[in-house]
Amino acid sequence: MERERVMRTFRIAMVQMNATVGDVSGNARRIIGWLREARKAKADLVAFPELAITGYPPEDLLLKPRFLLENRRALDEVIRHCRGIAAVVGYVGEGGISHTLPAHPMVVPAGRHELHNAAAVIADGRLVTVYSKWYLPNYGVFDESRYFHSGRRIPVIVLNGTALGVNICEDIWLPEGPTRVQAAAGAEVIVNINASPFHMGKSRFREQMLATRARDHGVIVTYTNLVGGQDELVFDGNSLVLDQTGEVILRGKAFEEDLLIADLNMAAVGRARLAHGRKKWLHGRAAAMIERTVLSDTFVPRRRTRVVTDGPVLLEPLEEVYRALVVGVRDYVGKNGFKRVVIGLSGGIDSAFTAVVAVDALGSANVHGVFMPSPYTSSDSRDDVRDLAGRLGIQVRTIPITTVFKSYLRSLTSTFEGQPTDTTEENLQARIRGNILMALSNKFGYLVLTTGNKSEMSVGYATLYGDMAGGFAVIKDVPKTMVYELARLRNRRDRTAVIPKRIFDRAPTAELRPNQKDEDTLPPYSILDPILKAYVEEDRAPDEIVELGFDRDTVARVIAMVDRSEYKRRQSPIGIKITHRAFGKDRRMPITNGYRNI
Amino acid sequence: MERERVMRTFRIAMVQMNATVGDVSGNARRIIGWLREARKAKADLVAFPELAITGYPPEDLLLKPRFLLENRRALDEVIRHCRGIAAVVGYVGEGGISHTLPAHPMVVPAGRHELHNAAAVIADGRLVTVYSKWYLPNYGVFDESRYFHSGRRIPVIVLNGTALGVNICEDIWLPEGPTRVQAAAGAEVIVNINASPFHMGKSRFREQMLATRARDHGVIVTYTNLVGGQDELVFDGNSLVLDQTGEVILRGKAFEEDLLIADLNMAAVGRARLAHGRKKWLHGRAAAMIERTVLSDTFVPRRRTRVVTDGPVLLEPLEEVYRALVVGVRDYVGKNGFKRVVIGLSGGIDSAFTAVVAVDALGSANVHGVFMPSPYTSSDSRDDVRDLAGRLGIQVRTIPITTVFKSYLRSLTSTFEGQPTDTTEENLQARIRGNILMALSNKFGYLVLTTGNKSEMSVGYATLYGDMAGGFAVIKDVPKTMVYELARLRNRRDRTAVIPKRIFDRAPTAELRPNQKDEDTLPPYSILDPILKAYVEEDRAPDEIVELGFDRDTVARVIAMVDRSEYKRRQSPIGIKITHRAFGKDRRMPITNGYRNI
Repeated sequence: MERERVMRTFRIAMVQMNATVGDVSGNARRIIGWLREARKAKADLVAFPELAITGYPPEDLLLKPRFLLENRRALDEVIRHCRGIAAVVGYVGEGGISHTLPAHPMVVPAGRHELHNAAAVIADGRLVTVYSKWYLPNYGVFDESRYFHSGRRIPVIVLNGTALGVNICEDIWLPEGPTRVQAAAGAEVIVNINASPFHMGKSRFREQMLATRARDHGVIVTYTNLVGGQDELVFDGNSLVLDQTGEVILRGKAFEEDLLIADLNMAAVGRARLAHGRKKWLHGRAAAMIERTVLSDTFVPRRRTRVVTDGPVLLEPLEEVYRALVVGVRDYVGKNGFKRVVIGLSGGIDSAFTAVVAVDALGSANVHGVFMPSPYTSSDSRDDVRDLAGRLGIQVRTIPITTVFKSYLRSLTSTFEGQPTDTTEENLQARIRGNILMALSNKFGYLVLTTGNKSEMSVGYATLYGDMAGGFAVIKDVPKTMVYELARLRNRRDRTAVIPKRIFDRAPTAELRPNQKDEDTLPPYSILDPILKAYVEEDRAPDEIVELGFDRDTVARVIAMVDRSEYKRRQSPIGIKITHRAFGKDRRMPITNGYRNI
Repeated sequence: MERERVMRTFRIAMVQMNATVGDVSGNARRIIGWLREARKAKADLVAFPELAITGYPPEDLLLKPRFLLENRRALDEVIRHCRGIAAVVGYVGEGGISHTLPAHPMVVPAGRHELHNAAAVIADGRLVTVYSKWYLPNYGVFDESRYFHSGRRIPVIVLNGTALGVNICEDIWLPEGPTRVQAAAGAEVIVNINASPFHMGKSRFREQMLATRARDHGVIVTYTNLVGGQDELVFDGNSLVLDQTGEVILRGKAFEEDLLIADLNMAAVGRARLAHGRKKWLHGRAAAMIERTVLSDTFVPRRRTRVVTDGPVLLEPLEEVYRALVVGVRDYVGKNGFKRVVIGLSGGIDSAFTAVVAVDALGSANVHGVFMPSPYTSSDSRDDVRDLAGRLGIQVRTIPITTVFKSYLRSLTSTFEGQPTDTTEENLQARIRGNILMALSNKFGYLVLTTGNKSEMSVGYATLYGDMAGGFAVIKDVPKTMVYELARLRNRRDRTAVIPKRIFDRAPTAELRPNQKDEDTLPPYSILDPILKAYVEEDRAPDEIVELGFDRDTVARVIAMVDRSEYKRRQSPIGIKITHRAFGKDRRMPITNGYRNI
């Protein structure tokens, strides 16, 4: 009889969960459910995302003392249920009242404890140690310095013969961060937990960065990410295990909950680290921060080791964007207690595409279309709306706005006497439509989805309280040219295209006056979109944009439009971030602003 | 002939200026103008507010490399004009590219310099030294960690025989901050420059804090504050000079530009500091940060020393709030290029009071009232609007909404068939009014001022795109009970009350259905407002609020209303912060929020 060879392995489970911000008890219940699954799978350790208990980002809920208490109670509940397995769980830690000079003293009101974005390390019903995030992102959509203090300790935990370094999100993005310290202190596996919001291209970039970290330090890196939508943000999952050579050995699903389980070959790590010639550079402050905890120094022998495959492949960037929009809508609608949505359908690509996303997110029975023609609405628009609705299997109601429009004009006749017709009358029409959608929302409990794209939002080519009226702006961060690309991508999925071809072919128009075209007011979208990207997303100066090959007057006109539309954007509904820089929390411009770019 | 006694004095000028965010060249021109005034007054040094060059807060303009360059060029221009006097000027400093571990590494994108909230010390056409703010507020309305790095040096400058410690705003709020280090290093005068936004009660609290600092360290404290409105914020001026005993010896105007000049009795400081027994506790890191610069060690003898009076007295808290509202409106309207505003007048206290503020800010010729009656509008309302308009000397146009309302109902008849009448129909009316106001805005270039108070904003007793439609929400942070107090205060100013008595006496009503009263839906404002203060401004838990003496069901109902109105507030126009915690940047709650307070 041949003796089976027993390798030194460490079985890690990673829970890519969809937490709900604020729902601490619900999140704890979900965590406890997953704990059970991971124990059944005989994992040595299970990792949950950053702030899994509170959801991410909890924002000013963190200023409520009772919320903090409930967060701690929820963690205690998780600890009680954590038997026969170890776990890393993100929660809000409370530190002492510091008497040294804190970085941002007013964050902690008198008599309150300072807060940490923390990872509890739990084993056998007790809290073994706590790691607090070092690097608090406070840029882009992030406000972590508003709430948290940086950690001061770096635990290394030895569990079943394997040395683990736990750290949180941003911590691993810095080459000089805790990963380096932990590796130098002997950690073989980095358990990095995250709430890393999606933007286009980030998943690839992230994998490269994690591969570099793993290789540089000769450690296995496990990356556990949150999944799901929260207001402007969508978390993409895409959790990862990378071996000590930087090779991806396991990847979680994109935009779905997932439980990943991997048997890590620790013998290989040990050999790699010997070959790597790990430098003992630890000294001074870094050395003093290390805290070594040995839970158990003998590994768990396993007869059968799971074959680790590399799981799902990374999606194409456009496919990722589409999935982000669907999840963003599904979670915004569901987590806010809505079931059904209503969309104003104009016959244009934006509203058609928004309706398709909504149907993919909620099912056709929950999506209601409204067609609101005016005298300027073409019969093509009417046909295209009908055609689209048929393909999507959604109900569309027609409510003409002409009589209401006329009654407004009559009421304003004497007031407007002698004044030429201008955009006022166009805005009136858009606002009647907004008002009708809101009336349907009020009467039937629908959430109104708005259909404006990023190009329009950028230059203010939209009517406040008109087409901007609604609860959630699905494609607010999607430039017009990308709306077309995404629509084409989605059309390829089914044998029969879901969006009628003619909607792609017709020139974009608001149909608010006779024969109106977007290009009467705006440069062609193929010119507009790259200028906007350079200006809004890349902070480029006008001269630099001209150097990219654009006409100076066009650049000047576009920038002026962007700058003077800030007041509109400030009142727009939130929408899903899919680019490097969205509007909303991601771009915080003053409305009162004397800076002239041109 | 008697020999005149020449005291050791230091003449400081302080410019309480109204900078405009973004208008770097305009701000620089104003600074240069004031420099000239201060030199004429033979001041040794003139202090300008924090970020005087860029205005405060410049927000994401700081991410534009060209903006930073123009800020530096504007400072250079100021430096060239600074002859025969020394100056302290707030601007954005650029540091090196740090290779140590920064607190928030992602703030500085690759290849960019880190930014500082800095004070340039200038003398005789050259930049002598730069102080960079230590304590970066990143709570409440502040986002300084989003942009800036903390300073690492603490200059002490000897000018005309007087040792000066320069620091910035938040720095002086901390007992352990740079003021302590500078005093220990010999500074006799602290030149503290500020952009400290107003809220009710802050000016008194601030004076007490500054008195403590002056006394604790035996130094003269000069406190130079910005003045004027910027989006949600109003800076109140109220600059101060406090002597080494903590006595206020000079106070700037409230809510107006001002040039303060004081001859500081340095001999008295020297004696005080000897008596005070200044401790030499300087060591380690703090000592290493001190940088002493001697510009000139001999004082300027003056024959005649200005008699320093204590200037204007502090205004009463309610009077301060009123002035803040007036300045907030004036600057929002003016700095955004508007001249005239339009206000929907209902006959209620909120719109009446808003109109009075607008008239005080802009003059009656620039304020247009619109009265938009429906069948539910009482004749009392009509009379009261007419009466108010007469007293204010403003134009009021009447535009009834009944026919438009009926035409909406007709258009929706089949859609709403079988459905009971509910708030949908009420919201429709409010939205027609919003639409009419916006049409006037579009046609005539008026800015729409909204009239909702904080009580309504808190519980969502307002119609999105209806009475919430507009550019600036004047009393958004003023609770209903305080609206009455402020209106009474304002009425006492003139012999004839500007707001008719009956407007105070009638029960608050939205007049959107027959005999409607606010109290049908809300608790009385005398109950509602303290509950809201406890919940919104003080983060108190329901149980604590009940313990304050309120009915549990009422508390639960109010909190539920506040929590579920977040989406409305997110789309509301910005308004003027006057309390400790306003909505807007000051309170950042998730919309998607599973936290149940009750």
